[in-house]
Amino acid sequence: MSTLLIKNGTVVTATDQFVGDVFISGEKISALGQNLNMTADKTLDATGQFVFPGGIDAHTHLDLPFMGTSSSDDFESGSIAALHGGTTSIIDFAIQTQGDTLGTAFNQWMEKANGKAAVDYAFHMAVTDFNETTRAEIRDLVEKQGVTSFKTFMAYKGALMVDDRQMVELMKEVKKHGGMVTTHAENGDIIDSLVQEARKNKQTEPKYHALTRPDIAESEATGRFLDMAFSGKHPVYVVHMTAESALNRVREATKRNQKVFVETCVQYLLLDASLYDQGFEGSKWVMSPPLRTKKDQLALWNGINQNLIQVVATDHCPFCMDQKKMGENDFSKIPNGMPGIEHRMELMFSEGVMKKRLSLNKFVDVTSTQAAKIFGLFPQKGTIAVGSDADIVILNPNQKHTLSSKTHHMNCDYSAYEGWQVQGKCQTTILRGQIAVQDGKFLLKKGFGKFLPRKKLDHTPCITE
Amino acid sequence: MSTLLIKNGTVVTATDQFVGDVFISGEKISALGQNLNMTADKTLDATGQFVFPGGIDAHTHLDLPFMGTSSSDDFESGSIAALHGGTTSIIDFAIQTQGDTLGTAFNQWMEKANGKAAVDYAFHMAVTDFNETTRAEIRDLVEKQGVTSFKTFMAYKGALMVDDRQMVELMKEVKKHGGMVTTHAENGDIIDSLVQEARKNKQTEPKYHALTRPDIAESEATGRFLDMAFSGKHPVYVVHMTAESALNRVREATKRNQKVFVETCVQYLLLDASLYDQGFEGSKWVMSPPLRTKKDQLALWNGINQNLIQVVATDHCPFCMDQKKMGENDFSKIPNGMPGIEHRMELMFSEGVMKKRLSLNKFVDVTSTQAAKIFGLFPQKGTIAVGSDADIVILNPNQKHTLSSKTHHMNCDYSAYEGWQVQGKCQTTILRGQIAVQDGKFLLKKGFGKFLPRKKLDHTPCITE
Amino acid sequence: MSTLLIKNGTVVTATDQFVGDVFISGEKISALGQNLNMTADKTLDATGQFVFPGGIDAHTHLDLPFMGTSSSDDFESGSIAALHGGTTSIIDFAIQTQGDTLGTAFNQWMEKANGKAAVDYAFHMAVTDFNETTRAEIRDLVEKQGVTSFKTFMAYKGALMVDDRQMVELMKEVKKHGGMVTTHAENGDIIDSLVQEARKNKQTEPKYHALTRPDIAESEATGRFLDMAFSGKHPVYVVHMTAESALNRVREATKRNQKVFVETCVQYLLLDASLYDQGFEGSKWVMSPPLRTKKDQLALWNGINQNLIQVVATDHCPFCMDQKKMGENDFSKIPNGMPGIEHRMELMFSEGVMKKRLSLNKFVDVTSTQAAKIFGLFPQKGTIAVGSDADIVILNPNQKHTLSSKTHHMNCDYSAYEGWQVQGKCQTTILRGQIAVQDGKFLLKKGFGKFLPRKKLDHTPCITE
Amino acid sequence: MSTLLIKNGTVVTATDQFVGDVFISGEKISALGQNLNMTADKTLDATGQFVFPGGIDAHTHLDLPFMGTSSSDDFESGSIAALHGGTTSIIDFAIQTQGDTLGTAFNQWMEKANGKAAVDYAFHMAVTDFNETTRAEIRDLVEKQGVTSFKTFMAYKGALMVDDRQMVELMKEVKKHGGMVTTHAENGDIIDSLVQEARKNKQTEPKYHALTRPDIAESEATGRFLDMAFSGKHPVYVVHMTAESALNRVREATKRNQKVFVETCVQYLLLDASLYDQGFEGSKWVMSPPLRTKKDQLALWNGINQNLIQVVATDHCPFCMDQKKMGENDFSKIPNGMPGIEHRMELMFSEGVMKKRLSLNKFVDVTSTQAAKIFGLFPQKGTIAVGSDADIVILNPNQKHTLSSKTHHMNCDYSAYEGWQVQGKCQTTILRGQIAVQDGKFLLKKGFGKFLPRKKLDHTPCITE
Repeated sequence: MSTLLIKNGTVVTATDQFVGDVFISGEKISALGQNLNMTADKTLDATGQFVFPGGIDAHTHLDLPFMGTSSSDDFESGSIAALHGGTTSIIDFAIQTQGDTLGTAFNQWMEKANGKAAVDYAFHMAVTDFNETTRAEIRDLVEKQGVTSFKTFMAYKGALMVDDRQMVELMKEVKKHGGMVTTHAENGDIIDSLVQEARKNKQTEPKYHALTRPDIAESEATGRFLDMAFSGKHPVYVVHMTAESALNRVREATKRNQKVFVETCVQYLLLDASLYDQGFEGSKWVMSPPLRTKKDQLALWNGINQNLIQVVATDHCPFCMDQKKMGENDFSKIPNGMPGIEHRMELMFSEGVMKKRLSLNKFVDVTSTQAAKIFGLFPQKGTIAVGSDADIVILNPNQKHTLSSKTHHMNCDYSAYEGWQVQGKCQTTILRGQIAVQDGKFLLKKGFGKFLPRKKLDHTPCITE
Repeated sequence: MSTLLIKNGTVVTATDQFVGDVFISGEKISALGQNLNMTADKTLDATGQFVFPGGIDAHTHLDLPFMGTSSSDDFESGSIAALHGGTTSIIDFAIQTQGDTLGTAFNQWMEKANGKAAVDYAFHMAVTDFNETTRAEIRDLVEKQGVTSFKTFMAYKGALMVDDRQMVELMKEVKKHGGMVTTHAENGDIIDSLVQEARKNKQTEPKYHALTRPDIAESEATGRFLDMAFSGKHPVYVVHMTAESALNRVREATKRNQKVFVETCVQYLLLDASLYDQGFEGSKWVMSPPLRTKKDQLALWNGINQNLIQVVATDHCPFCMDQKKMGENDFSKIPNGMPGIEHRMELMFSEGVMKKRLSLNKFVDVTSTQAAKIFGLFPQKGTIAVGSDADIVILNPNQKHTLSSKTHHMNCDYSAYEGWQVQGKCQTTILRGQIAVQDGKFLLKKGFGKFLPRKKLDHTPCITE
Repeated sequence: MSTLLIKNGTVVTATDQFVGDVFISGEKISALGQNLNMTADKTLDATGQFVFPGGIDAHTHLDLPFMGTSSSDDFESGSIAALHGGTTSIIDFAIQTQGDTLGTAFNQWMEKANGKAAVDYAFHMAVTDFNETTRAEIRDLVEKQGVTSFKTFMAYKGALMVDDRQMVELMKEVKKHGGMVTTHAENGDIIDSLVQEARKNKQTEPKYHALTRPDIAESEATGRFLDMAFSGKHPVYVVHMTAESALNRVREATKRNQKVFVETCVQYLLLDASLYDQGFEGSKWVMSPPLRTKKDQLALWNGINQNLIQVVATDHCPFCMDQKKMGENDFSKIPNGMPGIEHRMELMFSEGVMKKRLSLNKFVDVTSTQAAKIFGLFPQKGTIAVGSDADIVILNPNQKHTLSSKTHHMNCDYSAYEGWQVQGKCQTTILRGQIAVQDGKFLLKKGFGKFLPRKKLDHTPCITE
Repeated sequence: MSTLLIKNGTVVTATDQFVGDVFISGEKISALGQNLNMTADKTLDATGQFVFPGGIDAHTHLDLPFMGTSSSDDFESGSIAALHGGTTSIIDFAIQTQGDTLGTAFNQWMEKANGKAAVDYAFHMAVTDFNETTRAEIRDLVEKQGVTSFKTFMAYKGALMVDDRQMVELMKEVKKHGGMVTTHAENGDIIDSLVQEARKNKQTEPKYHALTRPDIAESEATGRFLDMAFSGKHPVYVVHMTAESALNRVREATKRNQKVFVETCVQYLLLDASLYDQGFEGSKWVMSPPLRTKKDQLALWNGINQNLIQVVATDHCPFCMDQKKMGENDFSKIPNGMPGIEHRMELMFSEGVMKKRLSLNKFVDVTSTQAAKIFGLFPQKGTIAVGSDADIVILNPNQKHTLSSKTHHMNCDYSAYEGWQVQGKCQTTILRGQIAVQDGKFLLKKGFGKFLPRKKLDHTPCITE
């Protein structure tokens, strides 16, 4: 069993921080200590650097067929880009086609990833059609496949959206087997009505994407989702929250003793809707929900520090500019999504830790630990602890660099953060004891990544009685 | 340097949980690992047991002169009782006498503890008279004495209470030097008016203590304290919160991007006001704020799991029954306080973890880690990590026992939890590498405890901008 | 033109109260004064009695085909009962059959009422199927038929329920023409899921009707309806609100500068869910939403005095016991509804005014004036003012009586208030200057009632900018 | 008894609106009707004009000694100005000097008004020193003098401010006798601390007046006042509310079934804090609380239409520019207050009714009816009804004019609304049947105004149970 010793770094977990050594035996961390008197096959000196748990991106869409095209990163290119930025595990979405079974989707996505993914990966099952047939599949997905989270869409009617009846039935069934329901919270009906009106008015530019998806559509759906969860005391998780008004629905729900898990994405913390005011260039940030205001950004940062938002993901779903152009004359045809999987850790470090918006521990918590805990990957993933997988990123806090499509590893011909100055660079990324990236070089083989079956979720009850 | 090895326990921190070994060199933890190949002067087998960070009780009153008498535990008896229950550090209150300096109070309390305390200890400075003289002392207390938290009382007018002007001035001065203000949040004026009315009506029994301190008096003061903090963007901490209505003030404050630290006490989670309905017997639980309803208990448990309450303390302030009898004919003369320092860890384990109201990590967080982090003792105290003080409690989750004044070590002739069945027993308590209590035997000398000067507080800002 | 003089009563409007005379010329009030020196064809002495505007019941269902049967009062029996209780106008619901036009429903209901109704009447149009065909009918309904309010159902999926898309489209269309949308706010999907589960569990008794329609289903739908209204700045009205949690959604909406109209019904103020605990007897109060708790009643009374609830109606929809028995073995088959049209004014007077929960002015406001103002009948109806229709009820505040199916005039073989003691009796009811009921005798002919085309609604904007 | 007939105007009350005649016999309205066949000593043709109840300004300070000078309008000049603008009654404040009795203040203010006031007047008693002596005066003030409202200040420490103990004791005593407590809600301690800091920093300009009285100081005090009221179930009234954050405290209070009365002033609806950005010119609007933002204005307009704000007053307290100059080098010495008594009705008509922010009925409600009802003057004052005082203003909605210190009648050498265009002019003001002002001419004698002893307040309970 090969061994690796990381010496003298500043080791940080969601709770702890100490200067010391991490000893790795095979795929696992076997000891932590100061001046560990142990010899290893290989030693990395991390003096002056941070030693963080490898990042977990809980929301990615690799190789996703969507809106008549496919996201431009597959599991190979996307996962290699992820490793460059310190992310060692992802949870992607296997999305049911309406009319088809869940199993079919699961198999499709297993196949997409197999032999390609260079990071470890799990799947949320996106349920778009819940009926007696698909109900019967839930148990096996949880117990046999280790798929314990079930995503729903409250928007995209006719393609992905479920109605409230399906939602509450799914919640019941999923809880029975130890899983959890998550949702894309936007009221599809409100949005569709606005989109139709905008199109009728010949409002075709990308900015109308944002104007036809106002935050009230998100906060309504968020509130309704929490109400349905409350009605049956179900644990739930809201993906990619963007708006202060939506976060306030969570705050209101706490008053009835409800606990809710919330995810936001890097872009909602850093970018705002003024980016849409530049003609078709704005299509780069056409995603759903759209970018909001600076006031919303502030609410999200504070929501993190108030412990109301647990996870920061990316919703990585890149499309190249010629794909975006499918909507050149109609914003509603622009493929929704943007690239981001590579930059999450560094942006959160630079904008969060270095700008004193986040403590080091909170940085680890939101980029790695909470995703692992909430979705049943802990303690295998998400921390630097004895017995855990040796998924580690060594980050140099002093190195500055600039984000650009010219240098990024994602298969996307633009960067959503072109020219952004970042302080802090992932020097070394380690996955299960193997050095995956060092000094900008990818050292693993594609397909090294393993599927991660997940444990049943054993959350502290969403309402303690 | 003597060494100690704890083998094969289930080590739990606020984030992690693994089965492994803890190696202690002198006063510090020097390594964590699985099957650590290291030899120690002494080895403890912790198989099947939990290995937790030593408890930190952030709210105690040992040797407190109050209401014409003194709390019945001094730093010797109180700290020994604490160790029996797994608590290895306390933060007591040095309370200024109105008209006197803060320095005088600090010196008095240092003297009370010195040579007696068997646990490590720090002091909150209770400021009861803030003026230009005492303002000038703040800097030295923070920088020279390591006293970084400043307690105020919004009740007990004429004895301890400060007015809003003193409060905001104190907040400004304290923040300037890197400290934080905490408060006992009850509106003394509302209460004094009700007490006077009750006395006029010859309502003398202990239950009138509770009836004259309604939760609106607590929630008003809590809200006002948060408003004053918000007006200057000051970080603040509310001690011993008891009421859902008060917690809702915190929830409302989150909507304006404010972050607040909140403490509750074990008794507010487990006991309720029906205990006052038994004549003078009720005096055992006369404390301020008083016990509330089962609905409030539920709100507090959920507040913990919603991450809105960070700390569970005791407000340990025991008085023997002959002291309580000072108020036999007038509830307002009953010395306020109850014994609890010994039972906090075991009760939280038994009622929290074993009854599935709290995860193991959250148990550690609220009983130890958060108190250390919030009050500047981290990472010396509050965790099991490389380089931290070896303050550890080994708890047997299977051992059941019954709480009673006959068996407890506190100097109080009654138990607030007489007959309470507890699952989980602290077998071994270790303080800075020394076994303090083992199998019910106290093995240290009194006076072993050290004063803990604390660091300046560097909280994530209370409002991120 | 015949004249009528009411002498010396205590005349009360939503604002005023004075002792004086009301002079009626033909159908209209022509003068108010003290010791009016005018002679009339007929004089009524109202000394010691209250002279109120005739009641307006904004929510009735006469001759309604529902759940396989029809409500047991038609426009004749129901309107005569109404007059006995001081109600002189009603707004009933013309309910579209899904697949049919709105016009068809309007014509059907016009026919039901014509020649039968003894009170004046208007119709809310209940839109159950909103599409491009029915969209085109809205304008004419408003402008040609004077139907300005459009009711929707958020429950009863498959029969009456509209989805959110239909709702927002309807709101847009209706506002364009000066109308307003109202809703029955219950989340049909949550309810249907619970009903299905109860039936599967053989829970067949009436009490399961209430248990499968929890208040969260009502508050969710209320909140969603307000969100949709807010998204387009539409004025809206919530019918028959029952729950504190729903009222709190209205309170939250006020924080975003939204104004909402709210109706409750007498039964939700006076009766509670404990009535369901008596086997099939409970079917008498099976209606939707169901009766709630005493805490909810209190919230509704206070909501009225806080001016957040404007209208108290009845949702009169009686079924005889043999009709109720259709659900003897399955609560979900019990026809929903209860009798009440006759008792609204007297119950609100007795329980509201006499028990000092309502001022006299507020009594008039909620039983008459607000319904007229909100729904475009003012100042023709809803007040005692110069030029208004002479719709008047003279009520003796000292006369006590007991409600019973033996004495009531509604065509229903039970009373929802059997044995209820009432203080205050309608002595005389006048409709457009004609004495309709005096001392318990009905003096008009059936069919005296006229259809009331209503004005476009010119509400203070729902959000003032 | 002389008679007066107003023909053919559009008569508007808080509820009604009709075209017709008002017949006045002596001081009282004796009949309302259409084409009243009655002859009068004098007839006014009001065709095309509005006939409103005379305005009641519930918050004025005439001849007030304050901050080392006196408000520049005495009861003569101020009341004549009021009549020019359609206000026929005022409620001024008799302000206790700390250390003195309430009776002394009452007598002083009676003397100030006697022989001078041309409007009818009542007094709120401002209690600045509540103790056992002054407690004993409350009963007589209510029962013998008809002073039923008791104002407190939560700011101006050392001069006017009471502490919470005085507040709750006053609330208890006042409720016992049928009165109500009102308050100026600003936290004096927060403000004094900020003022001291600004002065230390040599921030002397008027704008620092606003910056040192942030809205959090107002919302805190508002919330605390409501909490104290709630603790004893006391009815209360908040004077001159300015801030959305304060209004939200009222909204929160409604959730616990509490009802609260709220007043704002014209200037808070129309002017904003940008007026302070012009050097010492800004002193014209130095008042407490200060002007806020446009967002707050919007919240107040909507608060009126949501029925959460009942009264619009002026807080008329003028100082001439040479008085304002007392604070030329120190904003904290600028006498607080601005002129406004003359313009309230016309501004509310022009900006409220004509701009469709208020209905006609709501205009009457907030400028007259609610003040009369809340403070025990109804139905003598505040409406146009049979038996009420003939206090009437005839307003021409088509006449435009411009506000200016050159034309106003207030004794103040500047106008707070200089150059403001107003649509709608009070043509005729009638007080108790006498024409007080017609076409800009004052026709009464000074001293015509009578003191208005008020009735015990019999509010619908603040919390209905």
